[in-house]
Amino acid sequence: MKYGRLMAVVAALMFLPMLVGAETGADLWLRYSKLPESMATGYRKEAKSLVVTGNDATQQAAAGEIRMALRSLLGTTPTLSKGVADGSIVLATSSDKIVKDLIPGGLELSDDEAYVIRTVSVKKGKAILIAGRTTTGILYGTFDLLRRMQNGEDISNLDINEQPAYKLRLLNHWDNLNGTVERGYAGHSIFWNREESFEQLKDQYLTYARANASVGINGTVLNNVNASPEVLNTENLERVKQLADLFRPYNIKVYLAVNFASPAVLGGLDTADPLDENVQQWWRDKAAEIYKMIPDFGGFLVKANSEGQPGPMDFGRTHQDGANMLAGVLKPHNGVVMWRAFVYEPTNSDRAMQAYNEFMPFDGKFADNVIVQVKNGPVDFQPREPFSPLFGAMQKTPLMVEFQITLEYLGHSNQLAYLATMWKEVLDADTWALGAGSSVARATDGSLFGNELTAIAGVANIGRDINWCGHDLLQSNWYAFGRLAWNHQLSSEQIAEEWIRMTFTNDDSFVSTLEEVMMRSREAVVSYMTPMGLHHLMGWDHHYGPEPWTDLSWARADWLPRYYHRAGEDGIGFDRSSKGSNAVSQYFSPLREMYDNPATCPENLLLWFHHLPWDYRLASGKTLWDALVYKYYEGVEQARFFQKEWDKLEGKIDQERFEAIRYKFKQQTKEAIWWRDACVLYFQTFSKRPIPAELERPVHDLDELKSLKFDLKHHN
Amino acid sequence: MKYGRLMAVVAALMFLPMLVGAETGADLWLRYSKLPESMATGYRKEAKSLVVTGNDATQQAAAGEIRMALRSLLGTTPTLSKGVADGSIVLATSSDKIVKDLIPGGLELSDDEAYVIRTVSVKKGKAILIAGRTTTGILYGTFDLLRRMQNGEDISNLDINEQPAYKLRLLNHWDNLNGTVERGYAGHSIFWNREESFEQLKDQYLTYARANASVGINGTVLNNVNASPEVLNTENLERVKQLADLFRPYNIKVYLAVNFASPAVLGGLDTADPLDENVQQWWRDKAAEIYKMIPDFGGFLVKANSEGQPGPMDFGRTHQDGANMLAGVLKPHNGVVMWRAFVYEPTNSDRAMQAYNEFMPFDGKFADNVIVQVKNGPVDFQPREPFSPLFGAMQKTPLMVEFQITLEYLGHSNQLAYLATMWKEVLDADTWALGAGSSVARATDGSLFGNELTAIAGVANIGRDINWCGHDLLQSNWYAFGRLAWNHQLSSEQIAEEWIRMTFTNDDSFVSTLEEVMMRSREAVVSYMTPMGLHHLMGWDHHYGPEPWTDLSWARADWLPRYYHRAGEDGIGFDRSSKGSNAVSQYFSPLREMYDNPATCPENLLLWFHHLPWDYRLASGKTLWDALVYKYYEGVEQARFFQKEWDKLEGKIDQERFEAIRYKFKQQTKEAIWWRDACVLYFQTFSKRPIPAELERPVHDLDELKSLKFDLKHHN
Repeated sequence: MKYGRLMAVVAALMFLPMLVGAETGADLWLRYSKLPESMATGYRKEAKSLVVTGNDATQQAAAGEIRMALRSLLGTTPTLSKGVADGSIVLATSSDKIVKDLIPGGLELSDDEAYVIRTVSVKKGKAILIAGRTTTGILYGTFDLLRRMQNGEDISNLDINEQPAYKLRLLNHWDNLNGTVERGYAGHSIFWNREESFEQLKDQYLTYARANASVGINGTVLNNVNASPEVLNTENLERVKQLADLFRPYNIKVYLAVNFASPAVLGGLDTADPLDENVQQWWRDKAAEIYKMIPDFGGFLVKANSEGQPGPMDFGRTHQDGANMLAGVLKPHNGVVMWRAFVYEPTNSDRAMQAYNEFMPFDGKFADNVIVQVKNGPVDFQPREPFSPLFGAMQKTPLMVEFQITLEYLGHSNQLAYLATMWKEVLDADTWALGAGSSVARATDGSLFGNELTAIAGVANIGRDINWCGHDLLQSNWYAFGRLAWNHQLSSEQIAEEWIRMTFTNDDSFVSTLEEVMMRSREAVVSYMTPMGLHHLMGWDHHYGPEPWTDLSWARADWLPRYYHRAGEDGIGFDRSSKGSNAVSQYFSPLREMYDNPATCPENLLLWFHHLPWDYRLASGKTLWDALVYKYYEGVEQARFFQKEWDKLEGKIDQERFEAIRYKFKQQTKEAIWWRDACVLYFQTFSKRPIPAELERPVHDLDELKSLKFDLKHHN
Repeated sequence: MKYGRLMAVVAALMFLPMLVGAETGADLWLRYSKLPESMATGYRKEAKSLVVTGNDATQQAAAGEIRMALRSLLGTTPTLSKGVADGSIVLATSSDKIVKDLIPGGLELSDDEAYVIRTVSVKKGKAILIAGRTTTGILYGTFDLLRRMQNGEDISNLDINEQPAYKLRLLNHWDNLNGTVERGYAGHSIFWNREESFEQLKDQYLTYARANASVGINGTVLNNVNASPEVLNTENLERVKQLADLFRPYNIKVYLAVNFASPAVLGGLDTADPLDENVQQWWRDKAAEIYKMIPDFGGFLVKANSEGQPGPMDFGRTHQDGANMLAGVLKPHNGVVMWRAFVYEPTNSDRAMQAYNEFMPFDGKFADNVIVQVKNGPVDFQPREPFSPLFGAMQKTPLMVEFQITLEYLGHSNQLAYLATMWKEVLDADTWALGAGSSVARATDGSLFGNELTAIAGVANIGRDINWCGHDLLQSNWYAFGRLAWNHQLSSEQIAEEWIRMTFTNDDSFVSTLEEVMMRSREAVVSYMTPMGLHHLMGWDHHYGPEPWTDLSWARADWLPRYYHRAGEDGIGFDRSSKGSNAVSQYFSPLREMYDNPATCPENLLLWFHHLPWDYRLASGKTLWDALVYKYYEGVEQARFFQKEWDKLEGKIDQERFEAIRYKFKQQTKEAIWWRDACVLYFQTFSKRPIPAELERPVHDLDELKSLKFDLKHHN
């Protein structure tokens, strides 16, 4: 054994400098740190040799990954062999002869990305077959097997059949061409960084590609939805091509967010009217240029007529006109158009209702390579919102869910909010579109309305920080988004556990403790920021910290917290009931009626749908004021609990990440208290009611908090 | 009743503008706000008329005070009358004929400041006699009766005999001639303010005099012990005379702190050698000048050869030479010299031992009008110190206790530390000088060693802030100092209760709640700043906030926290045992042996006398580390408790002071957490031990706290 360990070390030193030295988080969940002997011994028998049937780049990537990983995990490298024997791992496509030999009757795979992992008998023993209809399936299957091994699962008798829930599983990077990242809290853009050469950045890009492939992410939008026309100039397209070539073996397509006015601004035309022939020709020429460089280019993401971005309405046209024009341009190249439904205007109508009102008329009128991208909630990535009523309602148009992985409204990279629980809450929510069981997931994954084109997107939390996400624990959201995009049936607990074991350690007490903290974390943030359906109380523009009082005479009402909380001496909350804005009418029965009645409306959305007096009695018997205050205090207690639990884990992992995370938890508690005091003291100026006597007193002074100003931009 | 109340209002409006409008704290405990009818009714019968036997200014001040007070308290003013009748209050000296009429055999009073308050029978009823050997006794007796009435005591059958414990009961004002106040946290100097004329300031000075007289303070040192020679120039002496004349009716003598080098600096002599004839003549001339202006001038306070101040040793002389020279100069004028024993040098010897070593050799060698002023502890006004070993040891020299009312080391004016408990701890401490019962109080009040000259001083917390002390609740320390100087047998609880009732309200729940908070407050500060005998961990120079880590290469070791805490991997604490500096040897048996043994040393002084390993086991079974951490946490919990208790009192007093105090308690909790985290995290770098798991985690980061810098001077 000594010798084996020695060799492992030597190997590590020779081939894996990235695994040596201080833990930085740079390796994400691909650390492949050596497994405890107890686990490794068994696995070695199953991984004596490796059979690879082809030379295709993707299959080679899979082979390279598994060899490197096993060397590191087990301390031994499977020998490359032509023939299958006991202890072989076979990487093959279903059409390869070897599969027909191993599986009488061969394999039928439903999908180009699907795969199987099977234990098959061979003479004198058994082997593990990882097969896909394409080599992509092999790549995904390989990462699946490695994940199971890192999680200590039994791999002696496997029969796994996997296929993705959504066809397109994308990251959206809000990266600007100048290298900044809108709502980025982990350093500057990894894509548009010009300080280092592409060569110097290659390793980083490969880790990015491997990490995405390991969770099944198959596409990435490389630039901000608030898009500069310049992204389409030739120099930038060259960069896009370089990335596309590097990502291709990992089954990752590149996409671009485009500015609808590009033909005018970049092309010099006097209009960008989608019905103008020259405009259409400009787009056709641009598409041809792109596809000549990148034959498998994914398509365009468009934010049109929203928050000042140009769009078809600027030329008297409609979303339909704009989206379908671009769809026509991309169709010959098999590209798709992702058209965002995030639209609202400072009108009298409830902001939460506008996307629905603006898009429903176009249901069924979009071309078949258009998909409408809808944020999970009707307002904007708040700690908690009800699901967007477009889900389930727009039945003749494919919709894609847009989640936000970066914590724009949940504490940036200073707080832990594990978002799998939030995303599951949305995906599992029942729209009642076709009666019970019409979940948001089924309304978007094709199973409910039979749409061919299915997709899901997450706004990335990735930057140039050494640990990618600015907070080691927030890597889990990148991981969780990918896993749920592949299979929305996975539980948040399982995803957390997988990620913890791969990212930190298999120590069971560490795993269970951190898993508990992660599972509570998002609700904690909701509690100390915006409990009971409150929303958008955050700082002006940068969205950091509490500012329920913000009032700027010149600002759009719907960008100010008062628009949302409506606190006054008479009570608090936004009346979206049938007596108010009637936003409830956008939901199907029985949700509509449930939300419409304060007595049946879920307490965690109560103030989203209702404006209620401070002395309103909740089911608990508490007054609204007391319940609200207790929620804010509960949030702080949760943050303190996280600190305590984390401190118990010292010594179980590397000190570098332990201390970095401990520092983050300190920040989180400080900011939780800041939020609690700010909101409770501010709302108290209206409620005129005391903080329940048994509760700790605020330590902040409202006037002092109001005077705080942060020099933060909305990009890093 | 309506009419009566109406008249009371009218009277208040006509004569008492100071009691009208917002509460500012400016009236201290002399608010005389109207008593509840339930209390007032009874008192009116006892105060129908007022008999005043003389025109002496002090007696008139007493008469004026009681009439103004009763008008305000009862809504009725006693009529002035010549003859004693039922319901008369009589203000007389024991030599007045009226006293002999009322008290067969007359009155014998032991002391010029003593007084009696007696219920005496007169025809058709009874009267209250307030008598002193001098009119000073009358003044003090008058304030005594008013205090009892404001406290709702029964005054129908009084037999009170009072006399002071100390002859000289002084405030020391560390006020600089430029108007700043060293260690002042309540605004600039009330005495050396040149922005307003003496006339404009007169009301303020009268309130100051009345407040002092009401608690028996009979002297005030008008300038900083770090004295400018200029205080003795004629212009400044004119100011001193004005104040002396104003204070005289209230039995308050003025004193000055003098710079020992004055003859050279101010007088232009080439030396200030106390044995030099010209120097002595200069002082004699200066004294003559002073006493010509102020015949009852009290004397000099001298800080010599301490912290850079000049002194006799600069000329090869001794404390004895210096003090006795000045004593000789003042003797003919009946002035006293208060010579401070606060001396220490950056030598190898323990700073806590130096005053004792430097002064003991002179015991019995000082002139009889010299008194040595000794700070309560051997180092410097820390939140907790053992008493100075000079008390009890220096038996042939009168010693005066110096307390610090201003919170130099206890949070300035941002924190509540009610100091009666600390001062009682010192005064009641048994020195064992002549066996059991040799308390510090008895060692200084003449009862133990029979010294004639007795005195006590408190460094004032008074400035030009509207509420005098920068924090409404800190007025209680000014009050408590005076009360204890008069009678050190009073309990801290009684003093607190008296003060609360006069300053705020007679509402019993308010009184008991605030009294409880005040009684716990000093120990809370000790707990979160310097528990278990730790000391001097405060910020460099300004002494604000935690800086246990401060390390300035150029600074005197004995001005740096490390000199005092001595924390290292081996443990923490200053070894003053017989194995260490042997400071314990300066105490009498059995204290010496008790302090010398960690097992018998009081836990609250353990690290003052001992350096112990982190795993040292305390009687509780806790390790030293755990016990220390728990203490720091307990301090924070106490601060939070104060906030909670205070918030329960809203509505029971004026909103102005309620909110100002609530804000201070917020500050206190924030700073308690700051202290706790700073000290625990800093000491943890040595102990390498965890914070007990059940405790809340720190919210601050040590490096961030270390980087905090405050632009604070050591004067306001």
